[in-house]
Amino acid sequence: MLKKIGFYFKTSLLLTLASIFMVSCTKSPKESNLSNTGHPCLILTEQGVKNIKANLGNIPIFDTTLAEVKAEIDIEIENGIQVPIPKDYSGGYTHERHKKNFFVMQKAGVLFQILEEEAYAKYVRDMLFEYAKMYPTLPIHPKPRSYARGKLFWQCLNDSNWLVYTSQAYDCIYDYLTEAERLTLETDLFRPFADFISKENPKFFNRVHNHSTWGNAAVGMIALAMDDDSLLQRALYGYKEGKIDPNLKDDDGGYINRDGKMGFLANLYEPFSPDGYFTEGPYYQRYASYPFLIFAQALQNKRPDLKIFNYKDSVLIKSVSALINLSNVNGDFFLLNDAQKGMSYYSSSLVSAVDIAYHFGGNNRELLSVAEKQGKVALDDAGLAVALGIKEGKSKPFNKRSIELSDGPEGNQGAVGVIRSGDLELVYKYTAHGLSHGHFDKLSYALFDQGDEVVQDYGLARYVNIEQKGGGNYLKENKTWAKQTVAHNTIVQNETSHFQGKYDIGSKHHSKKYIFSCNDENLQVASAKDNNAYPGTQLQRTIVTIKDEDYDNPFVLDIMRATSKTSNQYDLPFYYLGQIMQTNFEYSKLESPEVLGKNNGYQHLYKEAMAKADGANVKLNWLLNNKFYTYTAITSKGDDIIFGRIGANDPDYNLRNEPTLTLRKENTKDALFVSTIESHGTYSPVSEFALNAYSNVKTIEVTHNSMKYSGVKIEMTNGKQKLFFISNENNEVNKEHTLSSEDIKYIWKGPYTFINLN
Amino acid sequence: MLKKIGFYFKTSLLLTLASIFMVSCTKSPKESNLSNTGHPCLILTEQGVKNIKANLGNIPIFDTTLAEVKAEIDIEIENGIQVPIPKDYSGGYTHERHKKNFFVMQKAGVLFQILEEEAYAKYVRDMLFEYAKMYPTLPIHPKPRSYARGKLFWQCLNDSNWLVYTSQAYDCIYDYLTEAERLTLETDLFRPFADFISKENPKFFNRVHNHSTWGNAAVGMIALAMDDDSLLQRALYGYKEGKIDPNLKDDDGGYINRDGKMGFLANLYEPFSPDGYFTEGPYYQRYASYPFLIFAQALQNKRPDLKIFNYKDSVLIKSVSALINLSNVNGDFFLLNDAQKGMSYYSSSLVSAVDIAYHFGGNNRELLSVAEKQGKVALDDAGLAVALGIKEGKSKPFNKRSIELSDGPEGNQGAVGVIRSGDLELVYKYTAHGLSHGHFDKLSYALFDQGDEVVQDYGLARYVNIEQKGGGNYLKENKTWAKQTVAHNTIVQNETSHFQGKYDIGSKHHSKKYIFSCNDENLQVASAKDNNAYPGTQLQRTIVTIKDEDYDNPFVLDIMRATSKTSNQYDLPFYYLGQIMQTNFEYSKLESPEVLGKNNGYQHLYKEAMAKADGANVKLNWLLNNKFYTYTAITSKGDDIIFGRIGANDPDYNLRNEPTLTLRKENTKDALFVSTIESHGTYSPVSEFALNAYSNVKTIEVTHNSMKYSGVKIEMTNGKQKLFFISNENNEVNKEHTLSSEDIKYIWKGPYTFINLN
Repeated sequence: MLKKIGFYFKTSLLLTLASIFMVSCTKSPKESNLSNTGHPCLILTEQGVKNIKANLGNIPIFDTTLAEVKAEIDIEIENGIQVPIPKDYSGGYTHERHKKNFFVMQKAGVLFQILEEEAYAKYVRDMLFEYAKMYPTLPIHPKPRSYARGKLFWQCLNDSNWLVYTSQAYDCIYDYLTEAERLTLETDLFRPFADFISKENPKFFNRVHNHSTWGNAAVGMIALAMDDDSLLQRALYGYKEGKIDPNLKDDDGGYINRDGKMGFLANLYEPFSPDGYFTEGPYYQRYASYPFLIFAQALQNKRPDLKIFNYKDSVLIKSVSALINLSNVNGDFFLLNDAQKGMSYYSSSLVSAVDIAYHFGGNNRELLSVAEKQGKVALDDAGLAVALGIKEGKSKPFNKRSIELSDGPEGNQGAVGVIRSGDLELVYKYTAHGLSHGHFDKLSYALFDQGDEVVQDYGLARYVNIEQKGGGNYLKENKTWAKQTVAHNTIVQNETSHFQGKYDIGSKHHSKKYIFSCNDENLQVASAKDNNAYPGTQLQRTIVTIKDEDYDNPFVLDIMRATSKTSNQYDLPFYYLGQIMQTNFEYSKLESPEVLGKNNGYQHLYKEAMAKADGANVKLNWLLNNKFYTYTAITSKGDDIIFGRIGANDPDYNLRNEPTLTLRKENTKDALFVSTIESHGTYSPVSEFALNAYSNVKTIEVTHNSMKYSGVKIEMTNGKQKLFFISNENNEVNKEHTLSSEDIKYIWKGPYTFINLN
Repeated sequence: MLKKIGFYFKTSLLLTLASIFMVSCTKSPKESNLSNTGHPCLILTEQGVKNIKANLGNIPIFDTTLAEVKAEIDIEIENGIQVPIPKDYSGGYTHERHKKNFFVMQKAGVLFQILEEEAYAKYVRDMLFEYAKMYPTLPIHPKPRSYARGKLFWQCLNDSNWLVYTSQAYDCIYDYLTEAERLTLETDLFRPFADFISKENPKFFNRVHNHSTWGNAAVGMIALAMDDDSLLQRALYGYKEGKIDPNLKDDDGGYINRDGKMGFLANLYEPFSPDGYFTEGPYYQRYASYPFLIFAQALQNKRPDLKIFNYKDSVLIKSVSALINLSNVNGDFFLLNDAQKGMSYYSSSLVSAVDIAYHFGGNNRELLSVAEKQGKVALDDAGLAVALGIKEGKSKPFNKRSIELSDGPEGNQGAVGVIRSGDLELVYKYTAHGLSHGHFDKLSYALFDQGDEVVQDYGLARYVNIEQKGGGNYLKENKTWAKQTVAHNTIVQNETSHFQGKYDIGSKHHSKKYIFSCNDENLQVASAKDNNAYPGTQLQRTIVTIKDEDYDNPFVLDIMRATSKTSNQYDLPFYYLGQIMQTNFEYSKLESPEVLGKNNGYQHLYKEAMAKADGANVKLNWLLNNKFYTYTAITSKGDDIIFGRIGANDPDYNLRNEPTLTLRKENTKDALFVSTIESHGTYSPVSEFALNAYSNVKTIEVTHNSMKYSGVKIEMTNGKQKLFFISNENNEVNKEHTLSSEDIKYIWKGPYTFINLN
């Protein structure tokens, strides 16, 4: 049966899409391209299964993965089927069981295709019939916390997870089932299930949001498995009848659907920039990448004419490389917006993502080395391609370089800049807000050294799936602490967060790229501006890494500039991790810590010690993981230096008690915070030998500061002097600048210059 | 020339020695055994060098080490010789340079012997002549902090280090030098050097102390190299003319030399127990093991008739195995007394120790596997033996089991008990005080899980050789915090430390072994008593590990019993490491932390939160390194539960801000603290899956508590019940006990019984 699919473009956005998405728009709306090539057709194809069988035993990484999965599923089959009446939150038994069931069914389905052992098909069928028996009688899930409660789980999001995986299982055993069995499953389970998460939950389904992506993919995958054209349209374009009041806001204060955008294609267009950056950040991209890529794979297999992987200049393929570039040397993702530490490209969703990007994205050999590190592959056509590529020795190291990734659907809403220099990886954030998971952290950064986070981004305040911590869900401290500006390494004006900490204001704005120049590995510069975080105040931060032949490691120069119409208090927190070794100034510790402030995150900080700057450089020397670091900062006489610690007003020990050093300027219109950060030495607790325990920076000073230019001089302990000038108003590469500073005339071309004075 | 050596036994101790030390006592005091077998004769022998040369290129671990050392020394030779006028503390240039010089000379000497390249000999000779030129004019080192200031370094200890290594270098190039050169070096440098650290510093040299061990070995090594009998006698028996006032005390309040014991043999006899446990603990044994073993090796080579390795029933050989047994699964030493975290058997002094113990101690094949892990060998006869052993495939895993190591010269001053069960390693300390580096921590323990310290011993308050932290020396917080009882996982009575925190009292006493029974790997029991820490109060702690087939990991049962004539406040701190997940009781956090007490270490603790026990079990569930742990403790109604954190009154951030949970009983004569500690689950930040996040212990209760017996019942969450009884007064293995408890009569044989009730 040839079904028909139509493409309607109702909004200007979708008109834009039309020009990018290479669909066959000349066809009439009633014409369809749903092919009828039989099953499996989602992640496996008939030809793919043949190829896999032909290669089995000769594709080591595939064979190993297959053996592991088989061992796991054989135990599950032996343990028997459990389909309990839903009642728990995540972490609880019924939640974890249903979650396990969909993973297990997907794997059992794949095993049936590859190994042709009926036991796997029977297991899937029997479990599906348990669900088909239960589903028609199921009420809404009893746990009330979600805005869109599911039936199997407490939220539709998890129900959608279930359907994305289970569709694949159904596809794998489709031909094993009788027509009557298929009719029962589709009638009692799949169609009502798809309707429930779409028609009955438009606030969940009809939105641009990672939740909707899962919902769209779920409906789309089962549509493809069932060959249902109208369901597929719903998946791709949303449930048109489910209109949402454009003024409706969600818990975060953002509009649920202001402009009517919905469906998988809108969800694919909106959050990804042309560079493949996902606006919520890598942690959520990792989560969303599975439905994006698995549904895309299924579409490519079943509807190759849609050329989904070409969509928006191959954004899905780009997004996988972008995501890998947003991981540190160990593969752990940088923490941008809500993100839990330790998430990495070893996540199983990234195994599929990497394999799919390789198979459908032009066989990028660098992806093979990531797959090798992952040590497993997807058990499908894409995984086979990767396994063969590795076997044939095509793997090449994934070469992570400094990179700027634009944000926003059109790539014009700021960016994230990653500077890599020696063992340092610096992540500088000047993006858009990042939807509901965004933090109020304009122009913040974090610094890694050989994969260790040295100047940290706190991440989220949540222990994901650890039930004893608030059911494993977001903790209230995520809003009162983790999202607030003071929880980040960026400037806070008058103890208020950027955009007053309001999502609906923050989501209207983005920072602006100014410079990203990383071709010279000895001098890499990223600079960005933000004029909206505090109306009336202009912020510009310039981060430079300098590699000097006299020293083993590069160091960081940070210039944070604020100019305002009004006098303000400016705080610049510095979230170093480790133990203080020494400062070059006297400080007084309080007898007991005091709470630093009343709100906007300040209520979660203790003040432990204080010092008044005398106008000289301040130095903080500390030790982390047997490496010595020094922060050197220019101060003005009278600046406050505050030693703080996270953990105040934290009745349940939800926060980590980690330190910070904050520089505070009071009653200031224009402020220039300048500092260097060095990783200069090492300690061995075995030989007890301290190597280069002291900073190599003797002094830093501001030599020039005007609206047009800023200049900083750095003198090293070996006597060498360096000068850095930046134009604050013109970033043209060919613009010539002339500046007189300290009786010397400097002339250079481009937005900055760096001079070794001796 | 045949020189003579005599053996005088002046004290009853030395009479005891005589019967153990198999020397040729029949010889007259004037007769000598100094052989005249030529050079080298200390760590290398003429035959040994021949053997090494014959095997070079065919002994991988030796060849690799040789290549590394050669590369290192070639660079040093190229850099040239620097022998600066001494002026710095450790961490400073002159200190570090002289320290480097002796390491480099020793290695260059060895390279000359093995490779026969004159450049190495010349380099050693030239450097020695620089020293010989400078030494006669050198005043006492200008830095005043030591009780025994050196000349090259701020303390005689480091001067002795220099001589121990340099003697080896001298021995290696002895035959390369002319007789005139040797005369100059011996006259201007070595003899005055040896005299200075002995004759001129009897408080340093004539003592039983690790400092003296270095001094004795230094004088002894140069004596052997120079064939000087009278110097050797001074090394072995002390500088007889340098009498020390028996009432003289050192900075720690201990007597410097109360009983006239001195010299290398006394230093070897006193601190080692018959099991090879070194009373200061593994951290200082590691430091002392080099002079002990390297001098013993030299004695064995030059004076085999002394049979130094047979001394005290081969205690030196035993001490190496004991030390390895006192390391965790990663090779890091357990923290007993002053000890810095991270010190391990990868320390270079342990490379020599392991090789020497293998070569001279009967070729224990388990030591080869340690050498393999170390990845290098000593470049001498012992290292050759190890390299050959490894090459011949003789290596066997070093099988660390549960072990009790007695303390005290005669082995009757308590012990340290190590229980190993599954991935857990529990170190229980019921030793003597441990000389001047001892802590006031009777019956304390620490717990490791797969090498991670979970319930910690704080260790020392020092950053060894990190100059910016108090010159790298002991910080004042070592005395005010790290040594105090409250810094440990043991009972504190009335907020005072054991023995009033006085070294001269503590050093008179030791705890008593009671039970150490570890043959049943499912039930291991260690119990000990202390009646001296608090006069009038009797302490007994019993630690049990229980492995239950229903659960993956064993768990710990801890029974701490105090019985007193008077009413007291008892605190039992619990230094868990990690983040609190959940408690089963309500607690109130203070708005700001408050200092917990006034002195004895309490001034360094903050009180963060409080709860009053209602008499039920309290549970603390926490997460460390992605593992879930639970502490379950029996309480009495009204007990205080105090959440604390280290770091109060710490003006220089010398302390680590780590947590503790303290149970406090007030106005109590007899107290029984009973708790379990479980490692029951894991978390993956990649899959975000929490496995077995909750405790398997439902309840624990005291079923019996009398002077004669204690009994504890444990109910697991699966309903199974277990009962543990211990006899508090009789630890005979064959004694039969009858006890009625809860209407049931229990009869068993031996000091404890364990019953599965269902």
